[in-house]
Amino acid sequence: MFSTEQLIKMALSEDLGSGDITTMSTVPPGTLSTATVAFKEKGVVAGLEVMALVYRTLDASLKIELLARDGDAVAAETVVATVTGPSFAILMGERVALNFLQHLSGIATLTRAYVDRVGNAGAMIVDTRKTTPGWRSLEKYAVQVGGGRNHRMGLFDGVLIKDNHIRAAGSIGKAVARARQLAPHTLKIEVEVENMEQLAEACRAGADIILLDNMTVSKLREAVAWTRERHPDILLEASGGIDLETVAAVAATGVDLISVGKLTHSARAIDISMNIISQ
Amino acid sequence: MFSTEQLIKMALSEDLGSGDITTMSTVPPGTLSTATVAFKEKGVVAGLEVMALVYRTLDASLKIELLARDGDAVAAETVVATVTGPSFAILMGERVALNFLQHLSGIATLTRAYVDRVGNAGAMIVDTRKTTPGWRSLEKYAVQVGGGRNHRMGLFDGVLIKDNHIRAAGSIGKAVARARQLAPHTLKIEVEVENMEQLAEACRAGADIILLDNMTVSKLREAVAWTRERHPDILLEASGGIDLETVAAVAATGVDLISVGKLTHSARAIDISMNIISQ
Amino acid sequence: MFSTEQLIKMALSEDLGSGDITTMSTVPPGTLSTATVAFKEKGVVAGLEVMALVYRTLDASLKIELLARDGDAVAAETVVATVTGPSFAILMGERVALNFLQHLSGIATLTRAYVDRVGNAGAMIVDTRKTTPGWRSLEKYAVQVGGGRNHRMGLFDGVLIKDNHIRAAGSIGKAVARARQLAPHTLKIEVEVENMEQLAEACRAGADIILLDNMTVSKLREAVAWTRERHPDILLEASGGIDLETVAAVAATGVDLISVGKLTHSARAIDISMNIISQ
Amino acid sequence: MFSTEQLIKMALSEDLGSGDITTMSTVPPGTLSTATVAFKEKGVVAGLEVMALVYRTLDASLKIELLARDGDAVAAETVVATVTGPSFAILMGERVALNFLQHLSGIATLTRAYVDRVGNAGAMIVDTRKTTPGWRSLEKYAVQVGGGRNHRMGLFDGVLIKDNHIRAAGSIGKAVARARQLAPHTLKIEVEVENMEQLAEACRAGADIILLDNMTVSKLREAVAWTRERHPDILLEASGGIDLETVAAVAATGVDLISVGKLTHSARAIDISMNIISQ
Amino acid sequence: MFSTEQLIKMALSEDLGSGDITTMSTVPPGTLSTATVAFKEKGVVAGLEVMALVYRTLDASLKIELLARDGDAVAAETVVATVTGPSFAILMGERVALNFLQHLSGIATLTRAYVDRVGNAGAMIVDTRKTTPGWRSLEKYAVQVGGGRNHRMGLFDGVLIKDNHIRAAGSIGKAVARARQLAPHTLKIEVEVENMEQLAEACRAGADIILLDNMTVSKLREAVAWTRERHPDILLEASGGIDLETVAAVAATGVDLISVGKLTHSARAIDISMNIISQ
Amino acid sequence: MFSTEQLIKMALSEDLGSGDITTMSTVPPGTLSTATVAFKEKGVVAGLEVMALVYRTLDASLKIELLARDGDAVAAETVVATVTGPSFAILMGERVALNFLQHLSGIATLTRAYVDRVGNAGAMIVDTRKTTPGWRSLEKYAVQVGGGRNHRMGLFDGVLIKDNHIRAAGSIGKAVARARQLAPHTLKIEVEVENMEQLAEACRAGADIILLDNMTVSKLREAVAWTRERHPDILLEASGGIDLETVAAVAATGVDLISVGKLTHSARAIDISMNIISQ
Repeated sequence: MFSTEQLIKMALSEDLGSGDITTMSTVPPGTLSTATVAFKEKGVVAGLEVMALVYRTLDASLKIELLARDGDAVAAETVVATVTGPSFAILMGERVALNFLQHLSGIATLTRAYVDRVGNAGAMIVDTRKTTPGWRSLEKYAVQVGGGRNHRMGLFDGVLIKDNHIRAAGSIGKAVARARQLAPHTLKIEVEVENMEQLAEACRAGADIILLDNMTVSKLREAVAWTRERHPDILLEASGGIDLETVAAVAATGVDLISVGKLTHSARAIDISMNIISQ
Repeated sequence: MFSTEQLIKMALSEDLGSGDITTMSTVPPGTLSTATVAFKEKGVVAGLEVMALVYRTLDASLKIELLARDGDAVAAETVVATVTGPSFAILMGERVALNFLQHLSGIATLTRAYVDRVGNAGAMIVDTRKTTPGWRSLEKYAVQVGGGRNHRMGLFDGVLIKDNHIRAAGSIGKAVARARQLAPHTLKIEVEVENMEQLAEACRAGADIILLDNMTVSKLREAVAWTRERHPDILLEASGGIDLETVAAVAATGVDLISVGKLTHSARAIDISMNIISQ
Repeated sequence: MFSTEQLIKMALSEDLGSGDITTMSTVPPGTLSTATVAFKEKGVVAGLEVMALVYRTLDASLKIELLARDGDAVAAETVVATVTGPSFAILMGERVALNFLQHLSGIATLTRAYVDRVGNAGAMIVDTRKTTPGWRSLEKYAVQVGGGRNHRMGLFDGVLIKDNHIRAAGSIGKAVARARQLAPHTLKIEVEVENMEQLAEACRAGADIILLDNMTVSKLREAVAWTRERHPDILLEASGGIDLETVAAVAATGVDLISVGKLTHSARAIDISMNIISQ
Repeated sequence: MFSTEQLIKMALSEDLGSGDITTMSTVPPGTLSTATVAFKEKGVVAGLEVMALVYRTLDASLKIELLARDGDAVAAETVVATVTGPSFAILMGERVALNFLQHLSGIATLTRAYVDRVGNAGAMIVDTRKTTPGWRSLEKYAVQVGGGRNHRMGLFDGVLIKDNHIRAAGSIGKAVARARQLAPHTLKIEVEVENMEQLAEACRAGADIILLDNMTVSKLREAVAWTRERHPDILLEASGGIDLETVAAVAATGVDLISVGKLTHSARAIDISMNIISQ
Repeated sequence: MFSTEQLIKMALSEDLGSGDITTMSTVPPGTLSTATVAFKEKGVVAGLEVMALVYRTLDASLKIELLARDGDAVAAETVVATVTGPSFAILMGERVALNFLQHLSGIATLTRAYVDRVGNAGAMIVDTRKTTPGWRSLEKYAVQVGGGRNHRMGLFDGVLIKDNHIRAAGSIGKAVARARQLAPHTLKIEVEVENMEQLAEACRAGADIILLDNMTVSKLREAVAWTRERHPDILLEASGGIDLETVAAVAATGVDLISVGKLTHSARAIDISMNIISQ
Repeated sequence: MFSTEQLIKMALSEDLGSGDITTMSTVPPGTLSTATVAFKEKGVVAGLEVMALVYRTLDASLKIELLARDGDAVAAETVVATVTGPSFAILMGERVALNFLQHLSGIATLTRAYVDRVGNAGAMIVDTRKTTPGWRSLEKYAVQVGGGRNHRMGLFDGVLIKDNHIRAAGSIGKAVARARQLAPHTLKIEVEVENMEQLAEACRAGADIILLDNMTVSKLREAVAWTRERHPDILLEASGGIDLETVAAVAATGVDLISVGKLTHSARAIDISMNIISQ
């Protein structure tokens, strides 16, 4: 709640500061315009409502018409929205509005590429907590828009026991037992393992989900086979350095989930521009 | 001022929310640890002080030792910092601290690559306003760390007259004249042009800086030669779709500045990890 | 994160406003004192660290010594802390500090009473989302201190399907299926039911947890027996109007969890006072 | 100003966090509903406007119709408001909206009970500064709604000299003299006394109001008689452990004011529920 | 509480924005300096602690030594403080620190001039609510430092019935009666009157304080004589256009209080400068 | 962006606090009124939109009609706006609304006086950074309204090299060279000089603007003549103790700019009042 509003205010403040000197000195006050927002390359749209909120925060009198919907895969040169109203506000908000849209669409587009590579293999592409600080909710939203699923939002809504926790607790078994006793009963318990011994131990400990960390495709295949036979209810997640080249092979191992940090920390921005078409 | 503190608080809030369930249920209270922060690949370090501030904001009792300095080019597996103190705080802050460091180091590393390609050609690599919303100051800092220079911080500290302003004012000449009359006298006036006619008009209008937008290398060469002969004091900036492949050729045209949006909107994160080495 | 700091600042602002007129006009500046904080009746202590934070927020030079720990059951007239430093700050912060401590200790004391009534029956006392607005984290902490367990912190970290969701989705089965498909895979799915038909339907739908709402003790017993036989892995939660008189009987039905709204919305404050013992 | 808005935002944030998973995954987007808000037991209504503000903050398109007014004593099963609009918003805001209403109505209901016990005895029931941190203004408002009067809002709008101030100043006389000299001339001066000697001293010192602390009913009667005869203009306030059993007897002593901390720190919540009646 | 901290942060943000370009580009990092803060003209010092807080907010490592105290009347060229530490921080904070000090010292100096003109006449100089928005607490503090007294801080801690309230209530008598019934019993009631008829009516109505608005000196003398004879306990306040030329004559009429808006809305700043004496 | 909204909220909070006791106890709820806002003396209007925003922030249902425009020079007794709506809101917001308007109009009026004295001499009156903390943007706006021009907004949008920077860098030449190298290329470089030697050095160093600090009129004349002959492109700014008596003579020296701190730190408030004309 309210974090998007806060980020929008920060973004407008950092760009507008004490005012848009160029616009205020060159554009006659009272001028009205209509501008189009267009994708300069193909991509998956994400962030149209956020872009509209940027503009409404700047000037509530602006009229924003959305010509696409988040999740649409559009071709280059597609106009996805128009903005009509005072030229001052359109020009002042242009960069911030596009900065939101190009970043979120970049994430959705990259996510869609991963999802497409998986195809019908049955694995879900999920995000991680490797997000841009301040952007957790928005970036996780863009992953959904791209066809991915969200892993936990933060440290508060999921249990994921990693090596440091295991070492501190003494063993996988002890760590799972403590989490079962102390974490809210509404949460499943996930354990990160790096090899077959740890996998077996996590299964014995009663983990609900197991994260197979940095395993080769053949190791993953072995882990999946071993687990499916003995613990068919346990969800299996592959993670660690998976990219567009390898994701199909990983999915083919039969894991349920593939988590990809790159979706949120290394997606490149989509090229989107604004043009004033009438004034 | 204070925007970094604000972003850090947002980042900690969105990740920690109502608490780190896993750590609180598996790690015994009172445990102390030392952790190392290491680059997993080579890169240019940026954001060490910010990372330290993340940890101090979370728990003022943590001791952070920096083993590198922002701007250092480090090899893979270089430890750049250690964090010592309560295991709770080290684990709770790990992801947020790394998210800052990996993003800023990604930008500094990419900037350094551009700067290196330019070499001694004399052109400066500068950033743009195409930054991640909420991150303007930090990302522009990372560009500096990577050896780039900053263009204006926002709409408030520079005059950059683009096509929409020109159209609204009536002509390049009228736009420059109005800006000269109304903008603070402390600011130079920059005009964006797309061809030789506009270039000549901008020179006549008295522009201090001219942005040559989306020109080919040969066009740039022509524009530089024409301008240097007639207006040797005018700064020339090349912009638009310049990448690592083309930047050296652009620099060789003799422009003073090359602005690159990719530095801030499309740098991929550097792979950095934290390991608890004693507890 | 930070919500306790925010609440403390609000509390100090609303009480101190433009200043403590009485203290500033009657107490000589520079006076130092030591004050004791004492329970005037027996109870379970909760909120000592919060009380200390109130005082440190007001004046970082104050020295707070804690003589008890959160969770301690203390007798009437027990001194649980001392505060030493400027009399101005001790007097100005007294009411706010005590208001936090008396409210949280009230909740911990009431929770302990419920837990004690359950005894060894095996059911856990859990809280609800019926908390005082602004106090969610602190009140849930006090429940833990009193020996209770926390249900989900909010709408974001648990799935609890109630009648309105069922009606909107069409049936229990459809609601569970949609949640299974769309909610994060890290969350269990809980369904609220009011009778045996709904219970059977929720079991068939694959619910992980079932909330038995407003059932009589005999109905609860029937529901537990029926479920245990068929679905031994499903957690069962009793809820609705359970008080200190009835909680033991409810626990005896064999449910796993008993949720009690009164813990947080109707606990009376513990009588706690501050006395200046030397100045 | 603005503290209620702030508390509402905190409350929505702590409950909604990163989103209402259950509603978003089970309720079809675009669904519209009407819900009723009903008292499940009799009580005095307080907080209807606040509840409406909660909903408007969440979604400005919701239509809230109030069917009662703050201060109304209503019977069990009385519908006091309806909410119409998007089902998403109605379900997401339900708990927070009710948490405000049940808490404030609890205070108003308890206050009304005290006021009714006093009847025509002429004493006013007043609140104290023993309020829930963050809730000062709202809880004091609920006391008014219940028929009580407000004592000072905080340390800034009233002078109340207690034992610690007296000890620091040297005597009641010196404390009153200093307050008369240094406090704003717009404020009356109140002194807390515990026995007849202090009462006489406070009268001599020129106190405008005297708080009779923790006196028995017979002591109160004696204090009132003594003071009325000699200083008829002085207001007398009884305080300390007064409850519903004793308040009528205290009022009968002839004091002007009876302050009761329980009104705000120990009122139990009223049972109020929301039902979706059409969707 | 906290409003001064907030104002300091706003002031630093508006001046520093994205950074002090001049200092960062010309002063070598790591340089240390000592600077003096000196009055360039005689005046009454106010705001030294605030100035120190500005600097500590900017850089906690700065050492500020105060060589005078708020309230001191100092001669031209008096050094009132030194600041030692990083040159960066000293230069970056200079303007903001001085802006606070020169404004508050201006108010204290002007107040002292009014107080001196009154001399032993017995009237107190008090401020009004005509303060610079955002500065209420600080400006009222400066008035105290200058020897004045504070009127109410705002609308919340005093009752002042003016013509609009009288008209709305129906008469002075009705307005006072309603205020007596509804305002907290801890507050005195002040009424603004413009002539002898209203004065008599306010006295009859039982006002505790009467504000004599915009009366000539002879009218004031008449009003004082009339009231003293009949209602010796009522405080009399003169207000309206009183300046340094007329204040002595107004004080000589025997009024208790003289309120002066100019103290806070029209005091000119004191000329104060900072010099770096060693680096 | 948003700083005016923040200042308005601070101002309303500090004045209204926990409520307007007088109005709430004397004015019947539901009363509607119309009030006029009138200048009591002649002046230049500044701040009408801000005043309207104060009222809209307090109560969005108020209707504010502006009868003048910022920049208008109005005679005494001119009504510049009317406010219509709930009497409660009109009375509660009166003081804060007027406090904004009287401060900004004071600055605009004083600026206009300076501008009028300069007449056709060709020099621009500019402001300084000696503004009231928290008010930078608003006060600089009022200077524009009065006919003045703005110098840099803060330390971030202009380079102004003063003696401390020169000393730290080693010489004027070195300071300018470093600034040219490190400051954004979009900014001109201004140097403050105190005598002819420094002036010559600054010219040699390539300064774009030179601030002639605290020079007599004859010295200014000499400096202008010397510079115009050799460096006709350099802008010359006079500064230091210039008042309404001397500004015309300073302007006659031929300087381009005259900066005046008094505009923002020592303008007296304009006398403006509000009257309820119908209720």
